[in-house]
Amino acid sequence: MAHIDLNNDLPGIRGLMAYRPETAKPLNALAEILLRDDNNTLSRGERELIGTYVSSLNDCFFCQNVHGALAQHYMQCDMQFIDAIKSDFQSTPISDKLKSLLSIARSVQKSGKHVTAHQIDEAKKRGATDKEIHDTVLIAAAFCMFNRYVDGLGTWAPEDRQFYIERAPRRAEEGYMDFDLYR
Amino acid sequence: MAHIDLNNDLPGIRGLMAYRPETAKPLNALAEILLRDDNNTLSRGERELIGTYVSSLNDCFFCQNVHGALAQHYMQCDMQFIDAIKSDFQSTPISDKLKSLLSIARSVQKSGKHVTAHQIDEAKKRGATDKEIHDTVLIAAAFCMFNRYVDGLGTWAPEDRQFYIERAPRRAEEGYMDFDLYR
Repeated sequence: MAHIDLNNDLPGIRGLMAYRPETAKPLNALAEILLRDDNNTLSRGERELIGTYVSSLNDCFFCQNVHGALAQHYMQCDMQFIDAIKSDFQSTPISDKLKSLLSIARSVQKSGKHVTAHQIDEAKKRGATDKEIHDTVLIAAAFCMFNRYVDGLGTWAPEDRQFYIERAPRRAEEGYMDFDLYR
Repeated sequence: MAHIDLNNDLPGIRGLMAYRPETAKPLNALAEILLRDDNNTLSRGERELIGTYVSSLNDCFFCQNVHGALAQHYMQCDMQFIDAIKSDFQSTPISDKLKSLLSIARSVQKSGKHVTAHQIDEAKKRGATDKEIHDTVLIAAAFCMFNRYVDGLGTWAPEDRQFYIERAPRRAEEGYMDFDLYR
């Protein structure tokens, strides 16, 4: 049970968004632009993966499963692959550029001050553009917010990971701005 | 110098927002609703103070000075009082309710999972409403994002604290949605 009375039984951030639609609107607009907008050289799968990885580092069950299922959907892989990236991305066959961006995201999860000039140089050497580095930092920072919001108010989450996998195709199609999802 | 080429010399989050206005818009809309909307039983000063305190815990110089100056402006106090709250709010003459909310914000800064049922009970006993607790958690979480965004991309900040104090009255009047501020 959540720490406050949400007047609904929706899980995770969905219950919070239904409780306070005024703040839900910019939060969803941010997610839509960062994670889903097609005007981006990072794929949707790569962006969802960055969010999933940070949610995993923050130990947020709801977020890492919602976004992990979306990453798996976009990347057309299985959840074992997503789990392998979460536990040790360096040993997986993702691109060197994505590895360098996940390394930056891992630093951001600790604190903005943990990002080093060396990490940025490495990302650039591996082909990351300034905008990709910007978006990686902001995605990682945004999930440090979303994760704290979801867990700080003690929301509940479905325990069965299959629940998230089954919902992912519809969520991918509808996006973050469809407010009917939160009612 | 920032880690990426922002094509402008604006400090802190302002340089980032000018660089990427698509994400600036929802970020500013979130700040406007959370920190400035009049339909809220927490004063603007109290809300800016929560953001200032979290920014201080995250050691973000730019954010703690921008928002500390706004808190000082709204609360009609001096910066010494804001600094005293940042260093040990329990020993300052702020309300018991605000102390209980700052305690929750301090936990959120560590992780959402650090917020305890006891902290929530204490806040409720001291008169905090569900919506005030919700907004406290989301403000604290949002500053964990803003601080990481500002420091994760290595932005610069004016060193003179008087700069922020002098700007605060105009910022308070214009709010967060005035995009001319970011150009």
